[in-house]
Amino acid sequence: MRYQFSQKIDSLQPSAIREILKATADPSVISFAAGNPAPEAFPVEAVRKITHEILEEYPILALQYSVTEGYQPLRDRLVHLVKERYGIGRDFDQILVVSGAQQGICLAAHCLLDDGDKVISENPSFIGSLNAFRSFRSQLVGVEMGPDGIDTEKLEQALKTNPNTKFIYTIPNFQNPTGITMSLEKRKEVYRLALQYGVLILEDNPYGELRFAGDDVPTIKSMDTEGIVIYCGSFSKVLSPGLRVGYVVAPKEIIAKMTVAKQSSDVHTTILSQMICERFLAEYDFDAHIAGLREIYRKKSSLMIRQIDQNFHPAVTHTNPEGGLFLWCTLPKGSDMLAFCKAAVDRGVAMVPGSAFLTDDHGTSESVRLNFSTPTDAQIVDGISRLGDLTKKMF
Amino acid sequence: MRYQFSQKIDSLQPSAIREILKATADPSVISFAAGNPAPEAFPVEAVRKITHEILEEYPILALQYSVTEGYQPLRDRLVHLVKERYGIGRDFDQILVVSGAQQGICLAAHCLLDDGDKVISENPSFIGSLNAFRSFRSQLVGVEMGPDGIDTEKLEQALKTNPNTKFIYTIPNFQNPTGITMSLEKRKEVYRLALQYGVLILEDNPYGELRFAGDDVPTIKSMDTEGIVIYCGSFSKVLSPGLRVGYVVAPKEIIAKMTVAKQSSDVHTTILSQMICERFLAEYDFDAHIAGLREIYRKKSSLMIRQIDQNFHPAVTHTNPEGGLFLWCTLPKGSDMLAFCKAAVDRGVAMVPGSAFLTDDHGTSESVRLNFSTPTDAQIVDGISRLGDLTKKMF
Repeated sequence: MRYQFSQKIDSLQPSAIREILKATADPSVISFAAGNPAPEAFPVEAVRKITHEILEEYPILALQYSVTEGYQPLRDRLVHLVKERYGIGRDFDQILVVSGAQQGICLAAHCLLDDGDKVISENPSFIGSLNAFRSFRSQLVGVEMGPDGIDTEKLEQALKTNPNTKFIYTIPNFQNPTGITMSLEKRKEVYRLALQYGVLILEDNPYGELRFAGDDVPTIKSMDTEGIVIYCGSFSKVLSPGLRVGYVVAPKEIIAKMTVAKQSSDVHTTILSQMICERFLAEYDFDAHIAGLREIYRKKSSLMIRQIDQNFHPAVTHTNPEGGLFLWCTLPKGSDMLAFCKAAVDRGVAMVPGSAFLTDDHGTSESVRLNFSTPTDAQIVDGISRLGDLTKKMF
Repeated sequence: MRYQFSQKIDSLQPSAIREILKATADPSVISFAAGNPAPEAFPVEAVRKITHEILEEYPILALQYSVTEGYQPLRDRLVHLVKERYGIGRDFDQILVVSGAQQGICLAAHCLLDDGDKVISENPSFIGSLNAFRSFRSQLVGVEMGPDGIDTEKLEQALKTNPNTKFIYTIPNFQNPTGITMSLEKRKEVYRLALQYGVLILEDNPYGELRFAGDDVPTIKSMDTEGIVIYCGSFSKVLSPGLRVGYVVAPKEIIAKMTVAKQSSDVHTTILSQMICERFLAEYDFDAHIAGLREIYRKKSSLMIRQIDQNFHPAVTHTNPEGGLFLWCTLPKGSDMLAFCKAAVDRGVAMVPGSAFLTDDHGTSESVRLNFSTPTDAQIVDGISRLGDLTKKMF
């Protein structure tokens, strides 16, 4: 039988990241392609102890159906957490627990996007989100970035020329894939423009806690006096991605619609996972844990940057992120980036081609994304050395 | 700000089930409204032991990102399980692990339905699935059921008059909400008609293992020589719904699209949950566990039916399910079913109005769904007695 798929899904291709991750199943390949937290970042002993306690004390609660909105003690803790840490949460806001921030993005898209609606995004941006928007048949409008975030003049131009824009999608902290952090001035300007043009903002902040240099910049949601920002947070980078727990803070009316959509999507988020997150916040020193993570990633990013500076052809440039998991390397003008990636795989090193992150999926890129959180220190030294030889050979 | 939601979601109302479940948060209310497994059905000791072992032996695997398709050892076990138990799985088929069967339904809808496409469903049917189809702007075509399943003459009529039908949705075993099981003859006829009219079948089998009377009937998927059946199974009713693990068996080409959609939806299913399911299948006697569950539900359904027969006005009829979690009671012709449900809540007993399960969400019903798995035996006796008094007063 020839299957006739929906137009929503038929155009979507498996993500380049995913295909490359599959290629890296070969253990001899050094992978800078993933976006996984460092294995040493998981509080394994704490999770063991907490999980044991939960299954001793509340086994039925942990195994039974639960409510779509999320485990109430976790929602209560998150109300305090986002208020204290990010200045987020007004009377009109509510919290929905989701199955990873990816689900928050997908539910927002499902609730807001009709065929042909526009989404304005930083370009390049996280392919998982771009594909979620595409899967609801929206059209992506990419706006390029400077070293301090999205180009706000071009953003205003995009808003003017795309009146059916539903929201602006942004990752203000240590953006994926570029590692760029948006300045406070630009955050204020993005908020002002969204308000002026009557569009929402979808603020995705999975990496915000992983700052290892510079000072915190307020979230856009913290400026949200008018109820136009949907904020997505996650436990994936601060506790565990395998648990699949994230959260959305948004005006009640939006959360109500997202809750209805989530009910049809997966009923509720794994309750044992939610209970583990809640108890971790309740019983452990979150600040100390985060300080430990920051130190891990500070060291790993410094090592990778030092190796790049020592080994790469000087015409290859890179960003200097203040946090997160990724570096963005740009090859010399006119380079064949895909040929570089393929030659790298032949030398046993994988990374993600920059073109995978473009809002225009036929666009071309001269950049690649390098992840420093997943490889070991030895793999960083070895892999960057191999890539360095390649840059010197190719450029 | 006045939010403009997508047409997909704007028409969806929070399900009646969900609102009633909220009302039943009052612990003094006896709830026949839920669809939860009996608490005594959870293998708590096994889950404790397994979870402890997993977190001792494979903590990083359990906490790290995983692949969208599902935990490979679980997929391998499921290949054997569905083959041995349900005769399912041909060379062209593949398995995708999903976050509960609800996600399987939602992903199938996302991958197959364009605006205005038709879905033919048994009427009444499971509201969670109907809402998933509605949320992709499909149109529902309901076909009524007899005591042995869907009316196949009316099904053919519906297929003739709705040429843009994408699939037939069916719950052949102990259907939700009616408890009806489709006969083998009708399963064959549904398959034949789907093939003749060139539509797919979405076979939802969450309750199949919970048979406490009569003989097993082959799944429609077991007849699927042509690759037109998408089969959804679940661990929710046989192990734990809180873990959120289900699976889909379908032709590879369909699974490939659903995998892309799942990647945008939640990246992957909670890996600890998947590992718990896998190890439960590996280390415990699944047949003996299922036999225990069947005995629990056989007793509970017998008790409820006996109490109904002794207490209800004789003009109220009910189905006699051979398995599953639900009874379907029909009030005397011309009754005000919603008034009955409201009066019941006033007497401290909740159930789900039959109108919640209709494909036409403005339709009327004279039936109600009663769940016998969640309440205790004492609650069944007390609740049915109160309802009995009410039937005698109202009818």
